[in-house]
Amino acid sequence: MPNFFQQVAQVRDRNQSLLCVGLDTDPLRIPQILQNDPDPVFSFNREIIDATSDLVCCYKPQIAYYGGAGAEESLVRSIAYAKQKGVPVLLDAKRGDIGSTAEMYAKEAFQRFNADAVTINPYMGLDSMKPFLDFAEKGIFILCRTSNPGGSDLQNLVLADGKRLYEHVAELAVTDWNQNDNIALVVGATRPEEIADIRKITGEMTFLLPGVGAQGADIESLMKSGRGGEMIINSSRGIIYASDKRDFVQQARAAALDTRDQINQFC
Amino acid sequence: MPNFFQQVAQVRDRNQSLLCVGLDTDPLRIPQILQNDPDPVFSFNREIIDATSDLVCCYKPQIAYYGGAGAEESLVRSIAYAKQKGVPVLLDAKRGDIGSTAEMYAKEAFQRFNADAVTINPYMGLDSMKPFLDFAEKGIFILCRTSNPGGSDLQNLVLADGKRLYEHVAELAVTDWNQNDNIALVVGATRPEEIADIRKITGEMTFLLPGVGAQGADIESLMKSGRGGEMIINSSRGIIYASDKRDFVQQARAAALDTRDQINQFC
Repeated sequence: MPNFFQQVAQVRDRNQSLLCVGLDTDPLRIPQILQNDPDPVFSFNREIIDATSDLVCCYKPQIAYYGGAGAEESLVRSIAYAKQKGVPVLLDAKRGDIGSTAEMYAKEAFQRFNADAVTINPYMGLDSMKPFLDFAEKGIFILCRTSNPGGSDLQNLVLADGKRLYEHVAELAVTDWNQNDNIALVVGATRPEEIADIRKITGEMTFLLPGVGAQGADIESLMKSGRGGEMIINSSRGIIYASDKRDFVQQARAAALDTRDQINQFC
Repeated sequence: MPNFFQQVAQVRDRNQSLLCVGLDTDPLRIPQILQNDPDPVFSFNREIIDATSDLVCCYKPQIAYYGGAGAEESLVRSIAYAKQKGVPVLLDAKRGDIGSTAEMYAKEAFQRFNADAVTINPYMGLDSMKPFLDFAEKGIFILCRTSNPGGSDLQNLVLADGKRLYEHVAELAVTDWNQNDNIALVVGATRPEEIADIRKITGEMTFLLPGVGAQGADIESLMKSGRGGEMIINSSRGIIYASDKRDFVQQARAAALDTRDQINQFC
């Protein structure tokens, strides 16, 4: 059984795509045409997956949308469906807690939801991440530098040794923390100079780059900045909500195709 | 309607208690006698709440245990039950994500689960916390210095201005971030000198101090270090798993009473 990164590489080559589609499925934004389905959240995700599974390298459901709506069962079904279509799934959960609690979160991500990879938060340090990292075949994406405005509040603080906090996180991620060689980093796509900076520290390590689409990152500059290692480029709302009408499937496919092809121009 | 901190103060005075009991309810550790109940997780919590609701100032369910077990409905029922018994509930979730996603997490905590307060993670900065902080009547507990060994990996890093990262978080928490005056801090009870340090920065701000009981914090030193402001002292496993036999209710009550009284010696 290939590990998460090998699975992504296979699908990336098959689909010629670095694109990850974010399944941030808000029940209030599901097109009218699906609202009367028995499980509208799953129906929507299935339609999006059917429309894009030959254009992506993975899917990334954001667990908050399912938690906020009490739609855990829809999430289970959606992840199973994506995997059945041959595409690995990264669960965006950004969990982080003490060891015994982190074990329960790892169980949630990898056993209950059967995800192939997960995002986690490093603020509580190594022992809070270890229960995830111990799943050696899974991909563990640690938040390093995030794409939101407040990302700089802590991540960009300058340490006594002159490095920024996010650089320190990147250093630990390629050394002490990476005992199972299954760490990847979340690096906001909206800050090309910082992507380049982190790439220098981490060599070939995989980056998840969210921020394309609704958050407005420039594809050319992020592709140039991230060179030298693996990249997974995420777009969520820009694809799944490309239209809220009956043509949402066609529009989602068109947006995914367009984003994939834009990315490929700079590969 | 009193806000979270006012509710805690009322119950604290009524019960003469700073003790918070953590409902970290692992389905695998529920006593045999409850295993055949229709909802063993809720039955266990109900028994613990019945045995301790006159000895605590709040309850703190850890959402990971419910998420890992697919027991969200048990969590809804447990929170409702605690509130019905007149005790406010702090949901330990340590969430943190970009604004639109954080809104869904806030909805999960405050609408779906109807918690009175929540723990959150500051690594992604102010805009990731704002959707929680906007619930002005809720208590928002920001991770500052955590009690686990890895807590020092990032939180104790020294910044260019000579302060430690956790001190910087504490400073932001009493100033820029606290527009609705509803922030409290999570400060690991296992490090008295750091509790004192954070108390100097934050004045009377409420601290949640986890680490008593299974994690082994010394009550006398934490009580002395935390003086000068409000404190909520959490014990989870030391109380709810005081016994795994038929006497678990009596043993949980005895452990809660003992912990409360130990705390009160130093008030």
